[in-house]
Amino acid sequence: MTDTVKYVLDESRLPTHWYNLAADLPEPPPPVLHPGTGQPVGPDDLAPLFPMALILQEVSTEREIGIPEPVREVYRQWRPSPLYRARRLERALDTPARIYYKYEGVSPPGSHKPNTAVAQAFYNREAGIRKISTETGAGQWGSSLAFAGALFGIEVQVFMVRVSYDQKPYRRAFMETFGARCIPSPSDQTNYGRQVLAEHPDSPGSLGIAISEAVEVAATSADTNYALGSVLNHVLLHQTVIGLEAKEQMAMAGDYPDVVIACAGGGSNFAGLTFPFIGDKLREGRSVRIVAAEPAACPSLTRGTYAYDFGDTGKMTPLVKMHTLGSSFVPPGFHAGGLRYHGMAPLVSHAKELGLIEAVALMQTACFEAGVTFARHEGIVPAPEATHAIRAAIDEALRAKEEGRPRTILFNLSGHGHFDMGAYSDYFAGRLVDQHYDENELSAALAGLPKVE
Amino acid sequence: MTDTVKYVLDESRLPTHWYNLAADLPEPPPPVLHPGTGQPVGPDDLAPLFPMALILQEVSTEREIGIPEPVREVYRQWRPSPLYRARRLERALDTPARIYYKYEGVSPPGSHKPNTAVAQAFYNREAGIRKISTETGAGQWGSSLAFAGALFGIEVQVFMVRVSYDQKPYRRAFMETFGARCIPSPSDQTNYGRQVLAEHPDSPGSLGIAISEAVEVAATSADTNYALGSVLNHVLLHQTVIGLEAKEQMAMAGDYPDVVIACAGGGSNFAGLTFPFIGDKLREGRSVRIVAAEPAACPSLTRGTYAYDFGDTGKMTPLVKMHTLGSSFVPPGFHAGGLRYHGMAPLVSHAKELGLIEAVALMQTACFEAGVTFARHEGIVPAPEATHAIRAAIDEALRAKEEGRPRTILFNLSGHGHFDMGAYSDYFAGRLVDQHYDENELSAALAGLPKVE
Repeated sequence: MTDTVKYVLDESRLPTHWYNLAADLPEPPPPVLHPGTGQPVGPDDLAPLFPMALILQEVSTEREIGIPEPVREVYRQWRPSPLYRARRLERALDTPARIYYKYEGVSPPGSHKPNTAVAQAFYNREAGIRKISTETGAGQWGSSLAFAGALFGIEVQVFMVRVSYDQKPYRRAFMETFGARCIPSPSDQTNYGRQVLAEHPDSPGSLGIAISEAVEVAATSADTNYALGSVLNHVLLHQTVIGLEAKEQMAMAGDYPDVVIACAGGGSNFAGLTFPFIGDKLREGRSVRIVAAEPAACPSLTRGTYAYDFGDTGKMTPLVKMHTLGSSFVPPGFHAGGLRYHGMAPLVSHAKELGLIEAVALMQTACFEAGVTFARHEGIVPAPEATHAIRAAIDEALRAKEEGRPRTILFNLSGHGHFDMGAYSDYFAGRLVDQHYDENELSAALAGLPKVE
Repeated sequence: MTDTVKYVLDESRLPTHWYNLAADLPEPPPPVLHPGTGQPVGPDDLAPLFPMALILQEVSTEREIGIPEPVREVYRQWRPSPLYRARRLERALDTPARIYYKYEGVSPPGSHKPNTAVAQAFYNREAGIRKISTETGAGQWGSSLAFAGALFGIEVQVFMVRVSYDQKPYRRAFMETFGARCIPSPSDQTNYGRQVLAEHPDSPGSLGIAISEAVEVAATSADTNYALGSVLNHVLLHQTVIGLEAKEQMAMAGDYPDVVIACAGGGSNFAGLTFPFIGDKLREGRSVRIVAAEPAACPSLTRGTYAYDFGDTGKMTPLVKMHTLGSSFVPPGFHAGGLRYHGMAPLVSHAKELGLIEAVALMQTACFEAGVTFARHEGIVPAPEATHAIRAAIDEALRAKEEGRPRTILFNLSGHGHFDMGAYSDYFAGRLVDQHYDENELSAALAGLPKVE
C-alpha cells in the first residue's frame, strides 16, 4: 500500500483550451443589465474597463476557447498542477470513500488565482494597456495579479480592504515584492473613497467598497483597465484548466468522482474545478453531485435571493442576476477573507437555479478543525477558504462510513495557508469563534436590492 | 523563444540512493572527538541522541546509500523537484550566461529541509522512538521536522530561538498546525536554559543555545532522541537528492554547469546540490567551480578558523573539525536566520581545505536586491537565505557579460520567502541595513576555541 499517490499530468497534456459551460447549458443565463437603462449591456459599455478579447469571452457561447500560447507558457511554470489521493486522511477517517484533491497552491502566488490573472494580464498587454487597477480582500487575488503584472510588464495598483492592509502587512509586502502598489481602501484617491471616508472616517473597508474604488480609477483613466478576480464569466472560464486537468488525472487513476466539492466565495475556484464535470453531466448524462461549500457567515447560495444586483457597494458596476445577500450587506469579519463577498458568480447562480449544483453552509471552527486534521495527515497547511472544501469532503467521507457505502470524492485544495497563520494562531488559542451575520442587516440589505422587472 | 523552461523528472527517476561524498574524497575528514577524552567518538557515544542507522550513515564510506521506500514515498509528494532555466532573468541581465535553478521551495514546508527531516523521522520511528527534540532559528528546520513528525507519528518538541519565537508567531503557528510543540529558548525546561536565564534573564537566545537545550532533553530522556537540521554528515547525505536530480535535469537540458552555487549556513542545502557535482570532479575530472555564498555578517568559510570546536554554545556536543567563528560567537541579527550559525559542516569545511570549493561573503542588502529582481522576473519570492545564492549567480552572470564569455550557472533556490515577508517589508522601508560582526568579539570567540592537539 502506498501512501503518496500523485497523478502528474505531462506538460504536453496542459490544456490547449478553456471550457465554456455556457455552451452546454439548457438555457442561457440572464443578460447583464445597464444600471441606468435597465437594458442589456453591449460590448461598448464594458470597453472602458476591459480589453475586447475578455469582453467577447464574457458573452461567448463557444464550447472551447483557445488558451494563447504566452499564457500557457506562464502556466507551465507550475501547471499541470498535481492531483493527489488522500490516502493518509482516508485511513485516519476509517472511511470506505476514496478522497482525491487537486492542489492549486503550487502556483508561485499560492492559489488558483493566477490561472485568470495571467490570462487577464496577457489580454490587457495585447490591447496595449500598461496599467491595471484591482481590489483585494484576503490578498490572494492581489498577489496573483501582482505576479502576472510583473511577468507582462503591467503596473498593478491594488485597493486593499483597510482592515486586511493593517492586519496583513506581509501580504502587502508580498505584492510589493512583485512591484505592485497597494492602497488601503477606502482611500482618498477616488471620489467614492472620499465619500465613504467623509461618512465613516474609521471605515475598515469592504470588498464591495474596494471594487468601487478600483472600477472608478479604471473608468476615469484612459490608460488604466480594471481586473476582477472572480464572479465574471471570463474569470470562471480561465479557471476551468483546473477541472480539465482533474478529469484527465481522474482517468489516470481509473476513477470518476461521485461528488465534486469546492469552496465558493465569488465562485471562481468552484467553477474552475466543477464546470468541466457539469459539462459531462449535461452532455453525457454522467451522474455526479456538485457541491459548493460556503461560509455560514456569508451564505449567498443558501440564504441569498436570486435577483439582479450590483457587484459593488458604490453601485458602479452593471447589474447581474445572482444569488446575493444585497450589495450593502457587510459580512462579519471571519477569517476566510476570500469568501466574504455578498454575491455569487452569475454562472454559478444560474447552475444552482437549474438544479445542477447543491450548496452547504459551514461554520468556521469546524472548517479550521478539518484544516488541521488535513495538515497533520496530508502535510499541507490549507488556506482558510480551502478548509471549507476539506470540511465538506470529510463530512461526505464520514457519511460514506456511516452508510457503509464507498464513493469517490474529489475536492479542490485551492490554496495554501502560508499567509493566514494568524487565523490558525487564533484557532489554537481559542480566539476563533463561529460568527453569525445579523438577520436584520441581511433583511435590510435584501430590501435594498435594485428594482428590475 | 519560450519563457518558461522547466525540466521535470519523471517520478520513476526519483533517486533510489543518496550520494556519499566521503567515498570519493582523496583523504578522509578528521574524526569527531569526545570532548572529555579527546579521543574519536564511537557509535555508542552517539546512541543516546540518534538511532543506530543514522550513526552508521554518519561514518559510512559507501558511495551509495539506499533510500528506504517509506522515505521515497513521502519524497514523492513533491519530488522530483523542478529545475528551471531563468530565461526572463537572463534577458533582464542581458547576459550571455545560461542560468538554471533547482527549486526546493515546492516541498509542503517550503524548503529543502524535509529531505532530511523525513529520513530522520523514519529512522527514529523504525528504532521505536516516538519523541524527538530539536531547535530552530528562522523556522525552516522546525517546520520540516514538525511536518515529518506528523507523517510518521512522532511527537516533535522544538526549542525556538526566543527572538524568532517572539517576532515570528506565524512560523510557530505553522509548526503547531503539524502538531509540534514550540518552546522559546532559553527556557526553564533545561539545566542549560535555566543557567543562561540566570545570567541573562532577557537573553534573545541563539541557535547555539537552542541546540544545547534540545541535546540536553534528548541526552537526559530515555524515550527522546535528538535531530539536527544541518552540519552532520548524515544530514548532508540526505540532501544529495537535490544534486542527483539536478544532474539528470541538466542532462535533459543538454547542458552541464561551469559554476554551481548555493548559500551556506550550516552547509546542508549547499552540500545537497553540490556534492554530486564534486563527485563528478573527483571521479571524472569534470571542470566545475563550486561556490558557497555566505553572509558577510557570519562568514565561517571566509573568515573562520579551521579547527575543532563545539557545535553548540553549552559545549555539550562532540568536537568537530570545521570552519568556525567560535561557538561563543553571536552573529548580528540579520534576516537570513538560517545562515546565522558559527560553524560550517565538517564535510563542507574539509572540501574547502582540499581546494574543491570556493566561498564568497555577501552583504544582505545586495542579497535582498537580487531577491527582488529575481521575484519580478521569475515570479518566485525567495527566502532570505536563498537570496545569497541568487546574488552570487547574478554576479557571475554579470561577469560573463563583462568578459563577453558565456557560461552555464546552476544555483539552488533552497526555499520560498512566504514566512519572511517582514524582512522584505524592512527592505522596502529602508530599515534593512548591512550588518557587521564585531571584530573584537570574533577574536575573543576564536581565542576561546577548545585546545585539541
